[in-house]
Amino acid sequence: MLKPLGDRVIVKVEEQEEETVGGIVLASNAKEKPQTGKVIALGEGALADDGKRIPLSVKEGQVVMFDKYAGSEVKYEGENYLIMHEKDIMAIVE
Amino acid sequence: MLKPLGDRVIVKVEEQEEETVGGIVLASNAKEKPQTGKVIALGEGALADDGKRIPLSVKEGQVVMFDKYAGSEVKYEGENYLIMHEKDIMAIVE
Amino acid sequence: MLKPLGDRVIVKVEEQEEETVGGIVLASNAKEKPQTGKVIALGEGALADDGKRIPLSVKEGQVVMFDKYAGSEVKYEGENYLIMHEKDIMAIVE
Amino acid sequence: MLKPLGDRVIVKVEEQEEETVGGIVLASNAKEKPQTGKVIALGEGALADDGKRIPLSVKEGQVVMFDKYAGSEVKYEGENYLIMHEKDIMAIVE
Amino acid sequence: MLKPLGDRVIVKVEEQEEETVGGIVLASNAKEKPQTGKVIALGEGALADDGKRIPLSVKEGQVVMFDKYAGSEVKYEGENYLIMHEKDIMAIVE
Amino acid sequence: MLKPLGDRVIVKVEEQEEETVGGIVLASNAKEKPQTGKVIALGEGALADDGKRIPLSVKEGQVVMFDKYAGSEVKYEGENYLIMHEKDIMAIVE
Amino acid sequence: MLKPLGDRVIVKVEEQEEETVGGIVLASNAKEKPQTGKVIALGEGALADDGKRIPLSVKEGQVVMFDKYAGSEVKYEGENYLIMHEKDIMAIVE
Repeated sequence: MLKPLGDRVIVKVEEQEEETVGGIVLASNAKEKPQTGKVIALGEGALADDGKRIPLSVKEGQVVMFDKYAGSEVKYEGENYLIMHEKDIMAIVE
Repeated sequence: MLKPLGDRVIVKVEEQEEETVGGIVLASNAKEKPQTGKVIALGEGALADDGKRIPLSVKEGQVVMFDKYAGSEVKYEGENYLIMHEKDIMAIVE
Repeated sequence: MLKPLGDRVIVKVEEQEEETVGGIVLASNAKEKPQTGKVIALGEGALADDGKRIPLSVKEGQVVMFDKYAGSEVKYEGENYLIMHEKDIMAIVE
Repeated sequence: MLKPLGDRVIVKVEEQEEETVGGIVLASNAKEKPQTGKVIALGEGALADDGKRIPLSVKEGQVVMFDKYAGSEVKYEGENYLIMHEKDIMAIVE
Repeated sequence: MLKPLGDRVIVKVEEQEEETVGGIVLASNAKEKPQTGKVIALGEGALADDGKRIPLSVKEGQVVMFDKYAGSEVKYEGENYLIMHEKDIMAIVE
Repeated sequence: MLKPLGDRVIVKVEEQEEETVGGIVLASNAKEKPQTGKVIALGEGALADDGKRIPLSVKEGQVVMFDKYAGSEVKYEGENYLIMHEKDIMAIVE
Repeated sequence: MLKPLGDRVIVKVEEQEEETVGGIVLASNAKEKPQTGKVIALGEGALADDGKRIPLSVKEGQVVMFDKYAGSEVKYEGENYLIMHEKDIMAIVE
């Protein structure tokens, strides 16, 4: 099992279909589209100035939306995940 | 439904007509024009040092003005939105 | 009506005559000249660490001096304004 | 009258003679020479975290020394001044 | 013995096999793969504002995952180690 | 008299002999040699968050060592001095 | 005697043998090897927000490991030393 440290979250990225017109992949526009994924594991939260942990806002199993370039790719037991800081998560998809 | 995290706001951008003279699009000047849009959803607010949430100043349904390059574009159920931090909102249009 | 957020101020820029010699516009020197304008609207002030608002120092109707490149241009009901942070205002012209 | 905001100071720059040898202006060396000027007006001081003003250290009428590139040039009633932050003042000339 | 200072951790890097196809090393993709290693020694923790030490979250003997470019390589008694700040550790592999 | 503001110190630089071999000036190596000088005047110290002054550690008359590029050159009554922040002083030469 | 200011430490660098193969100096790899040296003198520690000194963690006489580019070279009574901030020391070699 992978246990993220601090305010980090492990996310299983959802496959994203490329937008195509008649099979031709459209050039992405200047603003990159965010991606979505499912939260798999959570850290204990960032350390506050008084030494306490600030609990994270997201929960395991939630689908979250994040910037295309957020996080670091990790491979664990044959699966690919992203480890990112919670602040890189923009929204929860409910 | 999309639920923004922290001090983020989801905005539905209003279409902006290009300034034209006799149908010719005018070159924008050096200072980019801001855009307007309607607030669709709000986060719980940024985390203060003492672990409390600082409530946002804008409210759902308000029309807000923001910098042209503020936020990240997201597509949700066929509609385009912007997710931005509240600090990127310059003014409320009342 | 436009209501600025936080420590922002809306200013109506005063027209500035270009310095000319015999009708020829003089090249500006390395240090850009600041501009002046009238304060039209004020935000509630920046958020202090304890969640209170820090009231602004300028008042509506005052003429203020600011850096040439301060603020963002906005157009509202046919008029041009600048929205800037109060810290970009250098002095009040009394 | 010009009233500076916050920790800003208005200074009337003293004319600085160029160093010359037989009328030839000497190339300045790598470290720029600071300038001097008289303090004309003071802001109320920077805002502390608790919302109080921190009074400035310089006083009106003092001659101060500052970096050649400090401040912004302003023209007011035909006179040129510099508006700078107090932290850009290096020393008082007594 | 090497005793790390502050919030530093000494890690013995685990060998990482290069991904190959028929013996040809595959070009890594844009996002660098993180590495894993075993924690060998810990500092006393970073200094809080009140002068106390904030204890580290990882423990000696744990296998941790970190960014490929984290830390500084040190050689000690013929062995290679990495000394890194705990914040560069992304997850514990349990 | 020059009175430095805040945490600034005025230093009279000591002449530094160039290292030469048979009269040829040696090229300096990548790490620049620090300089020494005598402390001539002190500011009242930096302003703490509570508005009090933090007294400086160096005293008038001490010889101090500082980075070659520290401070700003000032000329006062025909003499050259450096005005620098105390944090740019590396050591006291006793 | 040299007395470092604040959180600075004076270190006498230990000679480091270049890795060679048959007398040929090997090109160093991308990650620079750290160096070791003996602590010769200590500052009183950095200044905390409340004006107290935070004592240093290293002691005189300890051998410490630091980044190859840490500190400033100083020459004192014919000997070369490095003056560096304690945070640039990675580990104590016991």
